[in-house]
Amino acid sequence: RSGEMAKSTQLIDNEVFRAYATYAAIVLLKMMLMSLVTAYYRVTRKAFVNPEDAASLGKGDSAKKYLRTDPDVERVRRGHLNDLENIVPFFGIGLLYALSGPELSTALLHYRIFAGARILHTFAYLIPLPQPSRGLSWAVGYAVTFSMAYKVLKTVLLL
Amino acid sequence: RSGEMAKSTQLIDNEVFRAYATYAAIVLLKMMLMSLVTAYYRVTRKAFVNPEDAASLGKGDSAKKYLRTDPDVERVRRGHLNDLENIVPFFGIGLLYALSGPELSTALLHYRIFAGARILHTFAYLIPLPQPSRGLSWAVGYAVTFSMAYKVLKTVLLL
Amino acid sequence: RSGEMAKSTQLIDNEVFRAYATYAAIVLLKMMLMSLVTAYYRVTRKAFVNPEDAASLGKGDSAKKYLRTDPDVERVRRGHLNDLENIVPFFGIGLLYALSGPELSTALLHYRIFAGARILHTFAYLIPLPQPSRGLSWAVGYAVTFSMAYKVLKTVLLL
Repeated sequence: RSGEMAKSTQLIDNEVFRAYATYAAIVLLKMMLMSLVTAYYRVTRKAFVNPEDAASLGKGDSAKKYLRTDPDVERVRRGHLNDLENIVPFFGIGLLYALSGPELSTALLHYRIFAGARILHTFAYLIPLPQPSRGLSWAVGYAVTFSMAYKVLKTVLLL
Repeated sequence: RSGEMAKSTQLIDNEVFRAYATYAAIVLLKMMLMSLVTAYYRVTRKAFVNPEDAASLGKGDSAKKYLRTDPDVERVRRGHLNDLENIVPFFGIGLLYALSGPELSTALLHYRIFAGARILHTFAYLIPLPQPSRGLSWAVGYAVTFSMAYKVLKTVLLL
Repeated sequence: RSGEMAKSTQLIDNEVFRAYATYAAIVLLKMMLMSLVTAYYRVTRKAFVNPEDAASLGKGDSAKKYLRTDPDVERVRRGHLNDLENIVPFFGIGLLYALSGPELSTALLHYRIFAGARILHTFAYLIPLPQPSRGLSWAVGYAVTFSMAYKVLKTVLLL
């Protein structure tokens, strides 16, 4: 049993992997928070999509009027989908990158910039800030992920 | 070659990692099944979104009437998106958690509750069951993922 | 420090894992490219969803007319969502599969067919090609992922 545990902690004892795990957990949690923001706007704006959700606000026709879209709700949902489209590739490529043996300082630079850019992106989307705030923060995160993918393919390529 | 194989099986020999791999595969397969359910409803309800899909049901204007949304199709699609928003973070945070050296019994508890909650969530969404069935099953899976993220950050934090 | 690096490169020295990392990076990059295609169509079709994005094209009412959906934009977005629904499970199950000790030739067969199928799927969706091109390329990628999941569960099952 202790032999197994020793094996399982090898990866987590590696500093680059620890940095990856820290930032991956942070951006995944940030993405998950979008669900709570969506729920908050749905309840406060009274804008639902499922009849069983609106049912708590009234019966029959009085509940039906809450089955509607709301601009604030839709905005948060777009931000959430954008997170899925960008944070999920970061998680995957960032993991392969962490295992490809980068310098700790270089890895930290990638992870920190990505996390910062995605947090800025969320604020730019939800407030919303005028463009190009959202566009630039998106592009920075995108470029960081491409940079890591380049390092991964250069290191491991086996087609 | 055999040395490489030995390395590759280290992780998979770890019981916590085996438990993670089992439940991660189960919930990812469950998520993938939503595609089949969507296809089933699209065909039986004759509700398509791509003209090239509706073309098999008729030519020209007779096919156009099948380019429409259907409440059952949309419901499955919302369930699928909710899976992406919740099962993907579970996959990522659950992997980091498995590598952070938890007790096997604690890890199994997290994985079992999450998988059970998401299967319940799917039934609650598709049948649909009255609220708060879907809300509660969603919240349980969400809380399990946060609990694992807390353990990960406590163990590995390197900012 | 060098001891840590040695640990971190164990996995990446494994040929099956290198093959996995190569194809996982390729399909994740392919998925990310969908964002650029969406942006390209939004700009050339002048079809935006956020008022702050349309604002660059005019002020007030003259900008409002660019807040609209466009069939080409929606088509790319559906392709992108389909990638999330299929490439993300491939990433997860493919990782567990790579760690479950498959033969290199069998693993390469899975990864190559999946990557080829998803690239075909993108062309079939965006051109678009007549059905069943898109349906078949989707089904091939789906079947490959199920085949890997079967091997994973057979190897590691610990419920």
